[in-house]
Amino acid sequence: MEAISDGVFAVAMTLLVLDLAIPFASGSRDLIGALADEWPGYLGFLVSFATIGAIWLGHNTMTEYLDHVDPAILRLNLLLLFFVCLLPFATGLLAEFFKTDGAERVASVTYGIMLLLCSVLLSAVWRYAVGAKLVSPDLDDDEISLLTTRLTPGLGGYALLIVLGAFFPKVSIFGYLAVAVFLLLPFRPTLSRRAVRERRSRRRSAG
Amino acid sequence: MEAISDGVFAVAMTLLVLDLAIPFASGSRDLIGALADEWPGYLGFLVSFATIGAIWLGHNTMTEYLDHVDPAILRLNLLLLFFVCLLPFATGLLAEFFKTDGAERVASVTYGIMLLLCSVLLSAVWRYAVGAKLVSPDLDDDEISLLTTRLTPGLGGYALLIVLGAFFPKVSIFGYLAVAVFLLLPFRPTLSRRAVRERRSRRRSAG
Amino acid sequence: MEAISDGVFAVAMTLLVLDLAIPFASGSRDLIGALADEWPGYLGFLVSFATIGAIWLGHNTMTEYLDHVDPAILRLNLLLLFFVCLLPFATGLLAEFFKTDGAERVASVTYGIMLLLCSVLLSAVWRYAVGAKLVSPDLDDDEISLLTTRLTPGLGGYALLIVLGAFFPKVSIFGYLAVAVFLLLPFRPTLSRRAVRERRSRRRSAG
Amino acid sequence: MEAISDGVFAVAMTLLVLDLAIPFASGSRDLIGALADEWPGYLGFLVSFATIGAIWLGHNTMTEYLDHVDPAILRLNLLLLFFVCLLPFATGLLAEFFKTDGAERVASVTYGIMLLLCSVLLSAVWRYAVGAKLVSPDLDDDEISLLTTRLTPGLGGYALLIVLGAFFPKVSIFGYLAVAVFLLLPFRPTLSRRAVRERRSRRRSAG
Repeated sequence: MEAISDGVFAVAMTLLVLDLAIPFASGSRDLIGALADEWPGYLGFLVSFATIGAIWLGHNTMTEYLDHVDPAILRLNLLLLFFVCLLPFATGLLAEFFKTDGAERVASVTYGIMLLLCSVLLSAVWRYAVGAKLVSPDLDDDEISLLTTRLTPGLGGYALLIVLGAFFPKVSIFGYLAVAVFLLLPFRPTLSRRAVRERRSRRRSAG
Repeated sequence: MEAISDGVFAVAMTLLVLDLAIPFASGSRDLIGALADEWPGYLGFLVSFATIGAIWLGHNTMTEYLDHVDPAILRLNLLLLFFVCLLPFATGLLAEFFKTDGAERVASVTYGIMLLLCSVLLSAVWRYAVGAKLVSPDLDDDEISLLTTRLTPGLGGYALLIVLGAFFPKVSIFGYLAVAVFLLLPFRPTLSRRAVRERRSRRRSAG
Repeated sequence: MEAISDGVFAVAMTLLVLDLAIPFASGSRDLIGALADEWPGYLGFLVSFATIGAIWLGHNTMTEYLDHVDPAILRLNLLLLFFVCLLPFATGLLAEFFKTDGAERVASVTYGIMLLLCSVLLSAVWRYAVGAKLVSPDLDDDEISLLTTRLTPGLGGYALLIVLGAFFPKVSIFGYLAVAVFLLLPFRPTLSRRAVRERRSRRRSAG
Repeated sequence: MEAISDGVFAVAMTLLVLDLAIPFASGSRDLIGALADEWPGYLGFLVSFATIGAIWLGHNTMTEYLDHVDPAILRLNLLLLFFVCLLPFATGLLAEFFKTDGAERVASVTYGIMLLLCSVLLSAVWRYAVGAKLVSPDLDDDEISLLTTRLTPGLGGYALLIVLGAFFPKVSIFGYLAVAVFLLLPFRPTLSRRAVRERRSRRRSAG
């Protein structure tokens, strides 16, 4: 499960670059201007990369704490990967239509829904793992609820931004960037992995 | 064998997104309509992703039960990967031609044949492994025949859908989706991997 | 070294699919004809996939026999990956120009040179490993020379086909296919990996 | 961290091939000339591949010496991967605009800045690891400062080339190639990994 997920994350991150528009038609001296005109597309690339990065960080922590997998979690994980694979497409819509007034709103709302679905599914995989007792028995309840909090998507934030995107599509992209930065910043309390490892080995030698 | 297969599965899944048509020419306010018009292409993306996901699940279970590999199984596996790599192309044909009457039938039949070949080859790799005694000696005959049943492709179903696709191409795509969902749903009896691992360690300590 | 190589092989295999031309301009009922017209491109896809598959098989065997790596072999391996990454481009040239008389010859010769360079570099990595004593000490001289023979490229065959490609480009593609099939077929004597593993464990318990 | 990084490096290397322009419009007999005309694009492919290769080599050595990771280094590493993912885009700009006088300068300067940022971030990841005591305790100070020197980017060299690129864009590409070759050549003193491993096992048996 980890190998295919890491593969999909890596490829999806790198495929995003294909959405970066090269302004083919730009004349001889105005490439800087042409590139600057494409800024919402480049901003979308940054947001998508940061969001996939944040999902990967959460996924990585999660798989480290899993003891074993069952058929259902493998399928839930596939569903998560499905929406991660769609992110380059949604980013492409954004990059293509940010100049067209009505279409830009559709693209921004679509993009927000994709980001939301990725977050919801990452959380669903973890919650299923906890419910089905797939997590490592070394983790105590405090640690599990800490990670559950960390992996809970900012549902309210995304819903607000999706609505905002219907009216001010360009502003909403900055909102999505803020969410991604918030997810990436390690300012919430986290268990250091080393601490977990040390505790585990203490328990083992004690047992 | 697992590394390259997982890599190809991950890349093929993600490359499917390149087949998702961005309706470049759509005007300012009709992006929703333009996206809705592309539904067979998006449905094809879903079917291809689900099919590659199902093949990956089967492949993953299979490689877990393999004890060692021989030169022939590596080559059979390469042939499977060959047809998995072709799936994004067949999906692209589908997405491109669903609006053109005659071509749509060709695209649908081609797509069905690719799906069938992937299923047949996955089954062939497993049957070869059983015949050449490459599976783990811990597995008893019941377990092997259970997995053989699981990995047997729905030959009849695919054949029916390929014929159907020659007359009602759009309907057949829903059929392929139904097959993929059937392959993904874990309602058939499966050995839990944990049970297998536990039994193995019991045998080891007993021996 | 194995992770990045397997990654590049998997991605290069899958990227080949992007060279498969979808005949966009084909009318309503002649998609079969349009696809049939593209056969040299599809044959090129098959040859490139088979060649990368053969190189992967050789590379896989080789890395299994390596005991450790040194800075120089990592760089030689990067050079091999460089030419593997160029194969999709050379295949694209072939698919694009097989209808244009003079250009077809250039494309065919370029393609042959790329295949030859990949083969030569795979062999060079192995010969360097043997010369620099990087191979596992468990392998005796017979086994090493057997693998050396296996990894020696069909220099004569490729040289002949490159010259042939300058005059009969379409014929030469069948020749490259024949070489790839020859490299893939396991009819040459090979050490079974199980035998190697068993011998190693015997030696360890003996020592 | 290693899996996703190796995945991104492999995909970015292979995606570079998509920037190689196939001269579609070239007539029947002048494909050699048309390919020769594209030389700056092909040179850019070579430079980007060599640079990603050099960064991978440094990254590979670094992760081997890491004992554990912390949340901050994972995020710094994501930032490095972000700029590695942008390299195919910058290479595409170079390949597209080398014929347009003013745009060529912009493309060359952009490309140089990307190369510089990749180098700076690789160095930053390592320096952070040393500062936060994430490196393996087996490494003594001499070994750490040796690797720090090796991973210090040629800031001066890149800065000079970026300025040069604003005036002589084609010349600067050769400069970037020279830097990449310098980074790849193993002529600077390096610790052999075998030596490190042997020392470690000696210490373990001593302790």
